[in-house]
Amino acid sequence: MIVVIKPVSSQAKIDDLIGDLADRHVEAYLRPWRGGRVIILNSNDEGLKQWLEQAECVERVIPVHHSFQLASRAFGRESTIVDVNGVLVGGNDVAVIAGPCAIESEQQLLDVATSVKKAGACMLRGGAFKPRSSPYSFQGLGIEGLKILKRIGSKVGLPTVTEVMSPGDVGLVAEYADVLQVGARNVQNFPLLKEVGELEKPVLLKRGMSTTVEELLLSAEYILQGGNSRVILCERGIRTFERASRNTLDLTAIPVCKELSHLPIIVDPSHATGYRRFVLPLARASIAAGADGLILEVHNCPDKALCDGPQSITPEDFSQLMGDLTQIVKVIGKGIQRVSG
Amino acid sequence: MIVVIKPVSSQAKIDDLIGDLADRHVEAYLRPWRGGRVIILNSNDEGLKQWLEQAECVERVIPVHHSFQLASRAFGRESTIVDVNGVLVGGNDVAVIAGPCAIESEQQLLDVATSVKKAGACMLRGGAFKPRSSPYSFQGLGIEGLKILKRIGSKVGLPTVTEVMSPGDVGLVAEYADVLQVGARNVQNFPLLKEVGELEKPVLLKRGMSTTVEELLLSAEYILQGGNSRVILCERGIRTFERASRNTLDLTAIPVCKELSHLPIIVDPSHATGYRRFVLPLARASIAAGADGLILEVHNCPDKALCDGPQSITPEDFSQLMGDLTQIVKVIGKGIQRVSG
Amino acid sequence: MIVVIKPVSSQAKIDDLIGDLADRHVEAYLRPWRGGRVIILNSNDEGLKQWLEQAECVERVIPVHHSFQLASRAFGRESTIVDVNGVLVGGNDVAVIAGPCAIESEQQLLDVATSVKKAGACMLRGGAFKPRSSPYSFQGLGIEGLKILKRIGSKVGLPTVTEVMSPGDVGLVAEYADVLQVGARNVQNFPLLKEVGELEKPVLLKRGMSTTVEELLLSAEYILQGGNSRVILCERGIRTFERASRNTLDLTAIPVCKELSHLPIIVDPSHATGYRRFVLPLARASIAAGADGLILEVHNCPDKALCDGPQSITPEDFSQLMGDLTQIVKVIGKGIQRVSG
Amino acid sequence: MIVVIKPVSSQAKIDDLIGDLADRHVEAYLRPWRGGRVIILNSNDEGLKQWLEQAECVERVIPVHHSFQLASRAFGRESTIVDVNGVLVGGNDVAVIAGPCAIESEQQLLDVATSVKKAGACMLRGGAFKPRSSPYSFQGLGIEGLKILKRIGSKVGLPTVTEVMSPGDVGLVAEYADVLQVGARNVQNFPLLKEVGELEKPVLLKRGMSTTVEELLLSAEYILQGGNSRVILCERGIRTFERASRNTLDLTAIPVCKELSHLPIIVDPSHATGYRRFVLPLARASIAAGADGLILEVHNCPDKALCDGPQSITPEDFSQLMGDLTQIVKVIGKGIQRVSG
Repeated sequence: MIVVIKPVSSQAKIDDLIGDLADRHVEAYLRPWRGGRVIILNSNDEGLKQWLEQAECVERVIPVHHSFQLASRAFGRESTIVDVNGVLVGGNDVAVIAGPCAIESEQQLLDVATSVKKAGACMLRGGAFKPRSSPYSFQGLGIEGLKILKRIGSKVGLPTVTEVMSPGDVGLVAEYADVLQVGARNVQNFPLLKEVGELEKPVLLKRGMSTTVEELLLSAEYILQGGNSRVILCERGIRTFERASRNTLDLTAIPVCKELSHLPIIVDPSHATGYRRFVLPLARASIAAGADGLILEVHNCPDKALCDGPQSITPEDFSQLMGDLTQIVKVIGKGIQRVSG
Repeated sequence: MIVVIKPVSSQAKIDDLIGDLADRHVEAYLRPWRGGRVIILNSNDEGLKQWLEQAECVERVIPVHHSFQLASRAFGRESTIVDVNGVLVGGNDVAVIAGPCAIESEQQLLDVATSVKKAGACMLRGGAFKPRSSPYSFQGLGIEGLKILKRIGSKVGLPTVTEVMSPGDVGLVAEYADVLQVGARNVQNFPLLKEVGELEKPVLLKRGMSTTVEELLLSAEYILQGGNSRVILCERGIRTFERASRNTLDLTAIPVCKELSHLPIIVDPSHATGYRRFVLPLARASIAAGADGLILEVHNCPDKALCDGPQSITPEDFSQLMGDLTQIVKVIGKGIQRVSG
Repeated sequence: MIVVIKPVSSQAKIDDLIGDLADRHVEAYLRPWRGGRVIILNSNDEGLKQWLEQAECVERVIPVHHSFQLASRAFGRESTIVDVNGVLVGGNDVAVIAGPCAIESEQQLLDVATSVKKAGACMLRGGAFKPRSSPYSFQGLGIEGLKILKRIGSKVGLPTVTEVMSPGDVGLVAEYADVLQVGARNVQNFPLLKEVGELEKPVLLKRGMSTTVEELLLSAEYILQGGNSRVILCERGIRTFERASRNTLDLTAIPVCKELSHLPIIVDPSHATGYRRFVLPLARASIAAGADGLILEVHNCPDKALCDGPQSITPEDFSQLMGDLTQIVKVIGKGIQRVSG
Repeated sequence: MIVVIKPVSSQAKIDDLIGDLADRHVEAYLRPWRGGRVIILNSNDEGLKQWLEQAECVERVIPVHHSFQLASRAFGRESTIVDVNGVLVGGNDVAVIAGPCAIESEQQLLDVATSVKKAGACMLRGGAFKPRSSPYSFQGLGIEGLKILKRIGSKVGLPTVTEVMSPGDVGLVAEYADVLQVGARNVQNFPLLKEVGELEKPVLLKRGMSTTVEELLLSAEYILQGGNSRVILCERGIRTFERASRNTLDLTAIPVCKELSHLPIIVDPSHATGYRRFVLPLARASIAAGADGLILEVHNCPDKALCDGPQSITPEDFSQLMGDLTQIVKVIGKGIQRVSG
């Protein structure tokens, strides 16, 4: 259960409470939470709850029957809206993030960014550090890519998202990007999760190829309990026996996450399907299933892409998709998130 | 490749051709196809093709690079529309099939059938023979269930679909139902597939829990090559490591099937998700992804259902869903299939 | 729980008991079991148990906390030994079944049978009805194959095992073979399971590609509750994302089955791995893990096999394997089952 | 393909060659390899090969048809033997590594280490940094654990292995342990792989829950191409739909790895099965399948373990297992690796 501490509480009172819990052999984790503080307990004991509710510094006590406590819907009755420089993810409007898999050059990114902004994207994606199965594949432009991303994002007026792969790079990447992405392969890279949990920046957390929804929420919890509550979940397909698509997109994860957690969830149909001709139908389906947004790979010349060309759609495809989405969101009472300017 | 025989060809000419193929050590399968005949060859040899094109009884020769030849898009450029007593599946309108998991009584089926028809369903489902993991679970009403289904379908004016589990029951079930369903557990029950391939009735073929799309189409091919071209495919979730839902609905299978085959494909979000609160979002997503229809479990009192209550939606949920779908289909340029009367 | 009826009980007394259970709204399944009778209840209620223990015709009541009641270890404390014409499966000796995937001709089967018998096999396998993904693949010799199997089995002095795919063929196959195999694709073909449950012959039940151990035991239960207790389970690999082998052999299923059930379990490393060079190490591993036997595909000329050649080992490989096994079984205190004569 | 450079080659000659390759638009990766140097090319062009074979500084050119080039069997015809302070992994003797999941205290580790050494273990395992799904689970003793591990390893005379989770910790962990383990969750943590690739210490690389054998070998390649050729692979179960065991141990991976690679492979049946009663049969099976060793969780009081108690075996179980293994290895012509002293 989660113990919400009264804002005005003195440190001494809190220390006393922690001490009392230790005397009762209850593991207690004091953590910052949205300007205040909470204590997380590995227990939902009713007697303990009643005792805590009498404590002077306690505002209220919330029983949580999942290990992902801060991420749970029981704790966060209101859905979290993540604000990325004014672009909202998780609110009433669907947020569409687009851009190339890898940043290849200033011109390439400028072309794609200009196209996707025009078509209605509200955020720009682009990889500078690329996780590749083979050491002999293109590994990304690194810091040079980060600089390009920042310049182009600023030029076209879109907030940016890019992947960080190592705890040691978190500070660097945070200097250049507006949202830090933790990729599917790092979903249980706990030192990395802890590091981005210290940030004041939003984190896009992708589900791993064999991660259950419960584990995804536990990984989100690693970030939340560090004090960073600005987590956006991302479904991107899981690994199954089927080979007609690169992965199997699990859209049921959307209503499941909505039920279990207050965090927003978006979908990456590009990595999920692996082939551009399947991206549009699955993008439409994702929004119809209730996703808070999409992250899409768009390339102005997919056949020449240095990375994941086969799954990148063209700016023309993207534009058509935005038209479709504008109509679908109405059915479920939503709109499309636009970036001002 | 597939050799289409000229309609007027004499049996002698065809026999000669088959004989010539045998002399060339080419396996040849002569099969009925939509009033005419085709020969299916396990070869796409260019020389052979040219030679065949010269033969008197040959209309044309179509190279097919998949083992599911009759089911392939290469063979059937035009999408197949399956006509079930005037209700069309696979055309421009989305077909929604609804009804209880199991037929429990005349009154129960009448109540559900009346509700779903009113809300816009165009076909009635209901199980009489139920495949259950445990021999000590309710196995269905059997022939009594079939009779109820026929009476109620006729009374409310909806064509009916029900499962057949054994080759020996095919004739019996075909007497009572308009569409025969081959369930997920029987997707590679080849004697059953061959038996329904002899029918003049539509077959609803469900994907198995661990069946690839390619294998599903090969199973369809077993039916098609028996002379029955009225096959409706059905995605109903595959088995993965994730346990938040009963199965993992693979919506990518929809555009994959559309690309590889001319057969219509519908989706069963009830069995896929296993929980009624996930059925509506996934039903919407299925249609947005391009499915030709849905098959849904609806029960007037899900908590008392003898089978699969937790995944059955209420008539009220169903009615709400039909409203949503009416709007979503417009986005993709479709309508909703209605039953006349 | 399972109610064991006293052997001498009159039908009237049993009918009374069943009637009393009905009055108490308890589902009760009266079934034949090894010459006697049992009643299976979907309940482990302690009060009910005590009441039943007072009933005149009740010998004892055994609580079972799995749905596979007759198959459970709780019911069968002693491991079942299946006797196939004197060849024992499930006892102290490991039984090795070998033969070609498909019966192709009298000579082919004679050659393989002679070789494998000489090397120490105690049973002959060979397919007459072959379940093939494609309708254009070799489907087996059918009844002609059954006749060959019977003649060769008799000639070389080995009991035989062959697959049955359809309830309607069970009687026919039982005339010719000593053990009826239910293949992986039919593991939940319930009408077929019920049909072989009526037999007096042993059944080899293969696990399906996506069947859990629990479901496998429930499928066995379908056979057992029909009165046939002579079931041999078979692990043959499950379907996963890994493609280096045809399936993923799940050897943990062996100790799991031994813990949950009294039925013997053997392993098919040929279908599991799909490549002959992996068959020997996995065969050795299976026995080291405690399997009661093996079923192996052996072909005198694998490259010309009409079915599954790549996974068939040669008689020479087989002979080497038998030598290895002879030593491994000693480590776990077992021997090799030999056929007399 | 891999170009092996003559040991005496001048840097200028090598630079010329690299320059020529660049002129031909061939990607070339110059890497240290066992005291010499190699160039790895993303090409197996026959003309290129012939041209390279004429170059003065080239010793030989080896075509490799897998992306994991240095790890491939085509390159390393002789199996690699990894020397850990005199303990050999990958040679004729099977190496058994044992110890607790987590280091809990000096006394706990001493007790376990003493027991397992006495029973025949040749290396001591113990976790100081623990990757846990939940942030509220025991995370390991950290650096204090490393110190205990080093002291106890030295005291009982066993080399040690422990996990490293972050690139920033590699130097620290390498100070204290003899083998660095990269865990399943980090199998595609490429910055970590690159970091341990710079080390002069052996690396134990565990397969991920959804990693194919090919991807595992590509991850090994990341380490090898950094100059560290002392990689030990470890199969520890993959994630499937089956829940009777924690993971599904894929023993076929052993002969697959032996065929594709020259690196040694060991098995972790503790994490694979998740229950101690399944560990012994699977450990025996692993060795019978040809594994080069085992890594096992042993705890003197499993019920009180702070981590993974249910899968830890007792010292008594371990001792019995070593007895079994001593016999099994003889069957396949191997012995048990002992530590001197």
